[in-house]
Amino acid sequence: MTQPTRRPVVGVMGAGEGASERDCALAERLGERIAEQGWILLTGGRDCGVMAAASRGAKRVAGSLTIGILPSSAGPVAPDVDVAVFTAMGEARNAINVLSSRVVVACGTGGPGTASEVALAVKNGKPVVLLAAPPAARAYFATLGGDVACVESVDEAIASIRDVLARSVER
Amino acid sequence: MTQPTRRPVVGVMGAGEGASERDCALAERLGERIAEQGWILLTGGRDCGVMAAASRGAKRVAGSLTIGILPSSAGPVAPDVDVAVFTAMGEARNAINVLSSRVVVACGTGGPGTASEVALAVKNGKPVVLLAAPPAARAYFATLGGDVACVESVDEAIASIRDVLARSVER
Amino acid sequence: MTQPTRRPVVGVMGAGEGASERDCALAERLGERIAEQGWILLTGGRDCGVMAAASRGAKRVAGSLTIGILPSSAGPVAPDVDVAVFTAMGEARNAINVLSSRVVVACGTGGPGTASEVALAVKNGKPVVLLAAPPAARAYFATLGGDVACVESVDEAIASIRDVLARSVER
Amino acid sequence: MTQPTRRPVVGVMGAGEGASERDCALAERLGERIAEQGWILLTGGRDCGVMAAASRGAKRVAGSLTIGILPSSAGPVAPDVDVAVFTAMGEARNAINVLSSRVVVACGTGGPGTASEVALAVKNGKPVVLLAAPPAARAYFATLGGDVACVESVDEAIASIRDVLARSVER
Repeated sequence: MTQPTRRPVVGVMGAGEGASERDCALAERLGERIAEQGWILLTGGRDCGVMAAASRGAKRVAGSLTIGILPSSAGPVAPDVDVAVFTAMGEARNAINVLSSRVVVACGTGGPGTASEVALAVKNGKPVVLLAAPPAARAYFATLGGDVACVESVDEAIASIRDVLARSVER
Repeated sequence: MTQPTRRPVVGVMGAGEGASERDCALAERLGERIAEQGWILLTGGRDCGVMAAASRGAKRVAGSLTIGILPSSAGPVAPDVDVAVFTAMGEARNAINVLSSRVVVACGTGGPGTASEVALAVKNGKPVVLLAAPPAARAYFATLGGDVACVESVDEAIASIRDVLARSVER
Repeated sequence: MTQPTRRPVVGVMGAGEGASERDCALAERLGERIAEQGWILLTGGRDCGVMAAASRGAKRVAGSLTIGILPSSAGPVAPDVDVAVFTAMGEARNAINVLSSRVVVACGTGGPGTASEVALAVKNGKPVVLLAAPPAARAYFATLGGDVACVESVDEAIASIRDVLARSVER
Repeated sequence: MTQPTRRPVVGVMGAGEGASERDCALAERLGERIAEQGWILLTGGRDCGVMAAASRGAKRVAGSLTIGILPSSAGPVAPDVDVAVFTAMGEARNAINVLSSRVVVACGTGGPGTASEVALAVKNGKPVVLLAAPPAARAYFATLGGDVACVESVDEAIASIRDVLARSVER
């Protein structure tokens, strides 16, 4: 019953407490669509904002798997996270989020934490999808020279992730 | 389909390249028994020794789930790991292994990496099961004052884990 | 001889291998001016770009102290770093750079690593000085809502740091 | 004024809140002797136990330099620490303590945190000096196969450190 290849892990990053309703709605739909493709969803695991919404969407799908990489050593986790990895590293865990994802989706407006994850993804050569990002974010991240796609809808995001997975090989 | 509670995560730690055949056989049987209980298996994820053997045992069980917390930023992962978390933190990831497990099992003789995980578990108040540990390890870790059980067989280890899970509440 | 208060630590971040001559010249002058104020210089410690240049400038000043927080576990360090802290954490060490500095100066164009440090600084409520940053960076970081000052010269940067130190209390 | 070589960093590890008076007295004398040799003292930086005592001893010596690698993101630091590196990583920072030291001295009885540091030092090939360690610790760490010296007095510890520095080359 050994599995020859692991299911792809897709990271969804975004604002926590300050996330807008629109961004949470996007994240919930995105999580659901990611799970429908059979991909594993990875988030920052906290019980708020984009993290919680994306996991909630994913768990509507039978057979889905949601991973949360927490900044804390214990404590609250979004209820739809199947596996909680407690790092006790604070924001330094953002690097783990990025390295453990085949592709990183920044969902919505984002805040400084999301910005650090996009920057770390570019630094590490990970493909990034900016979903409904503000113009200033799109303009700035375009200058950093990574593999960054800008999309406006969840459908486009899924197409972009599929494209990335098709051409990338798990390192 | 939201799940109210996460499945318990059991960490199995042990030697990598230098693991003995006996320790790998113990780990394989232990991983299988852990998966049979419906618990999630967490290891250091590398493709050698106790980590690989425990994951291999677990994946013989339908519905099993194996997590690997890697020291690297990419690269080789034990083939029976379902989800690879790449930390790029070297041995500092040992703290994550411990914090993300409800109980930590040190399987077999262990090396210095395993020793650091047992010590970090005690430091963080995590229950530890020493399975077939050498006398010097049992004697030393008994002096550190944690919740440390010493057992000789996989059956006893499973009973000890079950006991810990029954009396502990996920923090 | 106990000292009642520690000397302030000023972090200087910027590009490594890809740093321009202009950015390195700015960093060298900035490091020298920081050391002249009696402040401790903290950088990413690598032997290239802004990190090496800032440390070189600082060590021209008698009594200066330069700290390097390395991503590696050992190996090359900029020659003008007095104390090398080896994290073996890769880019996750960027969070340490930020948390260990009273104020973070991003020197010059920067790359994705620098971007992550500015974002993490904002996330953690650390004051940031952007020295000679490109317009897209200034425009984007202004949207993240932190304590971010934009300056064009080393003199202005020093004045801005002094201002931050005067109104902040070491937490 | 560029310095060709960095001053050696000697790490002193030991218990925090629970440290005995004897262990603190040993640490204070050890810190002073380390500083007299011109070596930089590195500790875990917290304001208690062996960490605080070793730093206090070192700062009695003119020209001494004390570094503290804190588990926290801010907050209390031993008063005799010159440079506080805030990791916000909890016990995972123990790996940084070890990697940043040329030699690691475990001072006194120690607790589980100290045990993890000795184990990580052995794992990473760092020389270790156990000063006044309990018999069970000496017996156990001898089985892990590293470069571990056991001494009973501060004078012997200094001689052992000097020996290690003479035969080791900074990696």
